[in-house]
Amino acid sequence: MATMIMDKDRTEAFSDGIFAVAITLLILDFKAPDRGAANSNGELVHALLGLWPSLLAFLISFVTILVMWINHHGFFTLLKEVDRRLLYANGFLLLIVTMLPFPTAVLAQHLQTPAAKTAAVFYCAMFVLVNVGYNLMYMAGARQYLVRDKACGRVMSRVRNAYRLGFVWYSLATVVSAFHAPAGVIICSLLWLLWARLDYSTR
Amino acid sequence: MATMIMDKDRTEAFSDGIFAVAITLLILDFKAPDRGAANSNGELVHALLGLWPSLLAFLISFVTILVMWINHHGFFTLLKEVDRRLLYANGFLLLIVTMLPFPTAVLAQHLQTPAAKTAAVFYCAMFVLVNVGYNLMYMAGARQYLVRDKACGRVMSRVRNAYRLGFVWYSLATVVSAFHAPAGVIICSLLWLLWARLDYSTR
Amino acid sequence: MATMIMDKDRTEAFSDGIFAVAITLLILDFKAPDRGAANSNGELVHALLGLWPSLLAFLISFVTILVMWINHHGFFTLLKEVDRRLLYANGFLLLIVTMLPFPTAVLAQHLQTPAAKTAAVFYCAMFVLVNVGYNLMYMAGARQYLVRDKACGRVMSRVRNAYRLGFVWYSLATVVSAFHAPAGVIICSLLWLLWARLDYSTR
Amino acid sequence: MATMIMDKDRTEAFSDGIFAVAITLLILDFKAPDRGAANSNGELVHALLGLWPSLLAFLISFVTILVMWINHHGFFTLLKEVDRRLLYANGFLLLIVTMLPFPTAVLAQHLQTPAAKTAAVFYCAMFVLVNVGYNLMYMAGARQYLVRDKACGRVMSRVRNAYRLGFVWYSLATVVSAFHAPAGVIICSLLWLLWARLDYSTR
Repeated sequence: MATMIMDKDRTEAFSDGIFAVAITLLILDFKAPDRGAANSNGELVHALLGLWPSLLAFLISFVTILVMWINHHGFFTLLKEVDRRLLYANGFLLLIVTMLPFPTAVLAQHLQTPAAKTAAVFYCAMFVLVNVGYNLMYMAGARQYLVRDKACGRVMSRVRNAYRLGFVWYSLATVVSAFHAPAGVIICSLLWLLWARLDYSTR
Repeated sequence: MATMIMDKDRTEAFSDGIFAVAITLLILDFKAPDRGAANSNGELVHALLGLWPSLLAFLISFVTILVMWINHHGFFTLLKEVDRRLLYANGFLLLIVTMLPFPTAVLAQHLQTPAAKTAAVFYCAMFVLVNVGYNLMYMAGARQYLVRDKACGRVMSRVRNAYRLGFVWYSLATVVSAFHAPAGVIICSLLWLLWARLDYSTR
Repeated sequence: MATMIMDKDRTEAFSDGIFAVAITLLILDFKAPDRGAANSNGELVHALLGLWPSLLAFLISFVTILVMWINHHGFFTLLKEVDRRLLYANGFLLLIVTMLPFPTAVLAQHLQTPAAKTAAVFYCAMFVLVNVGYNLMYMAGARQYLVRDKACGRVMSRVRNAYRLGFVWYSLATVVSAFHAPAGVIICSLLWLLWARLDYSTR
Repeated sequence: MATMIMDKDRTEAFSDGIFAVAITLLILDFKAPDRGAANSNGELVHALLGLWPSLLAFLISFVTILVMWINHHGFFTLLKEVDRRLLYANGFLLLIVTMLPFPTAVLAQHLQTPAAKTAAVFYCAMFVLVNVGYNLMYMAGARQYLVRDKACGRVMSRVRNAYRLGFVWYSLATVVSAFHAPAGVIICSLLWLLWARLDYSTR
């Protein structure tokens, strides 16, 4: 099979569409209480406050996917073209991105219940998969003929090291959460400080 | 962390995808009545008319998000590039845009019930957050190296002043609606006359 | 308010996002029957065949919105820029496009019931609104400084006349369907022969 | 009717929006179990494992539509422009893509039930329609004035032959699945080895 060079712009547009669906997914859990269901200000306040696990899940999911989109965006600025192998790696990442709101909602519903450990392991393990997606994308994209000339060297090492480090920490978080759910989730969360600041600039 | 200059086009495409999901969200509340549920023209007319709170919510939400998109569009015409700080400010705005249909639906369901004040405060307070989003986006975007050369000066002041003024009025509307729900909502609505006409042109 | 020239590309992208949501909306009514709900091939066939009104609604809605998108696409090829007035006309059209799957589903559910006339009037009246949207878009877009130079003259008249003709026929269809539901729907449907072939080319 | 040359970029953007909706459709079947519904780790694990048919359907549907998108993307790299006939062929393909998650979910729910043959025939027959869509797109697109100069000849024959071959095999799979459901589905699945590798490059 010959190398097939494809359109970077369209790959970004398709990815952005999927990111946009995934990031807004959990807003579907918010349904306005019917007129009959809340007969006073107190009851409506109570009904709205009762939505906190849905709100928490939506906020975490939105911020998480936003940061992932920024990293996706950053990585693609390093590329000049895409090939089929990159499209599959990118496809795997998009698959996991689409699934992410679900374990996030499970975690928000169950973190304070006796089923917390299961929810936390599920959540952390999903981030291992997210991280595998970024590493696959890196490996598919970091080949000479796909990377922009000025992107070689320092920035590529920086990105590769961050992605590898992520794998170690997310795996650790998954193991830890089987014994202590909040500790595992905290390790996961601390890693956002890394992703929110990871620098893809070439200067 | 070095400044990371990113792709304005892709940021717009991602934002447009989220705006498109948000603006169409409340149409999901419309389900065709089953064949069995309406056995005559009168019953079907009655069933359709009973959807008025959903229709009202959809219309308000659509027009509101359309005007917000036009302002988002207008502001981005002033920029030549985006950086990470702007991506986060934009992300916060998109988060609030996605949430907006929910308080709109709550308001439409409850404006004529004893829970009207709660619904109105919730609705107006969400617009304080929308306005904070635009102000953050302004502050992140109004820096010398991101703004197009011909956009400096007059147009930037005009936009900044409108956004600041909005904060004052939306805060006032939130306080007022705790005492008189319709009055607060009317203040909110009058502000659309400002946003629908705010001029981002540089001539 | 000075004329504000805006970005045609981004307007198209936002419109395409909303068209994509609207055209796929009715697929949400298809839910796979649970394993327990169909215990034999006969029962599953029966369950699938029972979905015909949903399938009919989906197919009509998809084809209708596809043809509307092609006309939207065709009209925008005539423009070189957009201004705020066009954004509002386009926004009105997108509002109606988003609503269209609902009356389509109502019609598919009720065309063979005693409530057929109500469903048909609702359906035809929505197309009057669709047509108003195209006429508003034409009026907002047909001004000298927005239209591409080579688009003037013949093609603009052809489009304008088709849109005006549409208004007459859809209004007629609405009146007719109050007396004879199928006749009104047939008039509506015949007009697709016009829209599916309307030529926006400038040669 | 004169030939109307239209905008390839916008056609791709609209198609990508619909692909993005279709590929994420089955994720809507995943709802986090309520706090009350799982009172221990064991119960939550059990509830999550019970989602396997939904997960299977989502994974198959995602991978299938991803490969279809890559082929759509590949085919469009061969074109320089689109005309109305291609827009309708593309529209038919998008219609089928949007419907595909439904038979996939039916198959995942029923492959191990007595209704397996019905589900398998429905699934395989949908791929006959998918294949008809690609063949129509090929026929509409393979005309001299739409194809990029360097795409003529070898690559066009290779693509045409693959699409035709697909029609034969999918038809066969549909017939086989009426007698032996798993065999039909396996034939369908083997064809992905062809589509996942089909080469649209012109060198």
